[in-house]
Amino acid sequence: MYAKRNHGATLRAGIVAVALVFAGASAVQAQEDMEQAVEVRQSLLKLVRWNLGPLGDMARGRAPLDIERVGLNAARIEGLFGMMGDAFATDTRGADVETDALDRIWEESEQFAEKISAARQAAADLAEVAGTGDEDSVRAGIGGLARTCGSCHDDYKAD
Amino acid sequence: MYAKRNHGATLRAGIVAVALVFAGASAVQAQEDMEQAVEVRQSLLKLVRWNLGPLGDMARGRAPLDIERVGLNAARIEGLFGMMGDAFATDTRGADVETDALDRIWEESEQFAEKISAARQAAADLAEVAGTGDEDSVRAGIGGLARTCGSCHDDYKAD
Repeated sequence: MYAKRNHGATLRAGIVAVALVFAGASAVQAQEDMEQAVEVRQSLLKLVRWNLGPLGDMARGRAPLDIERVGLNAARIEGLFGMMGDAFATDTRGADVETDALDRIWEESEQFAEKISAARQAAADLAEVAGTGDEDSVRAGIGGLARTCGSCHDDYKAD
Repeated sequence: MYAKRNHGATLRAGIVAVALVFAGASAVQAQEDMEQAVEVRQSLLKLVRWNLGPLGDMARGRAPLDIERVGLNAARIEGLFGMMGDAFATDTRGADVETDALDRIWEESEQFAEKISAARQAAADLAEVAGTGDEDSVRAGIGGLARTCGSCHDDYKAD
């Protein structure tokens, strides 16, 4: 009888130990998911900047205007903005990660989605305008796209 | 006469100092360019993995096959591979950066470009096959795309 009770206690202790290991593993997984989400977001925005930076220089007259390059990069930026919603789908509020993403992104997700949509549209418009070859419109289109970036950063990115 | 020679020496010293400052600034800029190139490459490949990972799970039966998602992600991956050539245009051989990119990328740039092109085509093929909705072809297409990644990593990425 004593041995049986003892066996039961050992079994219960074993179950608790296994549960703790699983809880630990799932906590590690959750942390990795949060870090992965931040890396994906930052990668996406790095590629937007990489494609937009040279266009900003062209619009400001710091580099010669290369309309073919503007069209190519604008189309790429449109594609990148198409991934932005998925990239911000993971809510990292309160997670132990280094991020400039403000909590408002998930508090007012519809407004955030509208800003992303506006930026994507500005990129699509720029790609279309580049197709016409009109230099002034291209410069204006680059400015328009850059403003949609700034507008979103004002509200949703830490200074 | 002495004052004049002294003035000339001061001027020469000044020119040397300015030249050193410019050389220093340009060395700093060159280092930043190398680091930026590595970050852009890694961002691009992170986004490829982010889009391909869930498809690999579907092909292996670890997740339910979602053909619409396969089509979307395959199209995204095709777009990302379209940026790969530009992303690897900066030759970082011998640069003071941490990278898995092997020197062979720039030693045999035509073969590297062919591998990129094959991967891009495999992504385009997968997007097309996803449009037909045939599950076996979709699984085969995911495998085909994954093999083009592996083939390029075998030759051009450090183990």
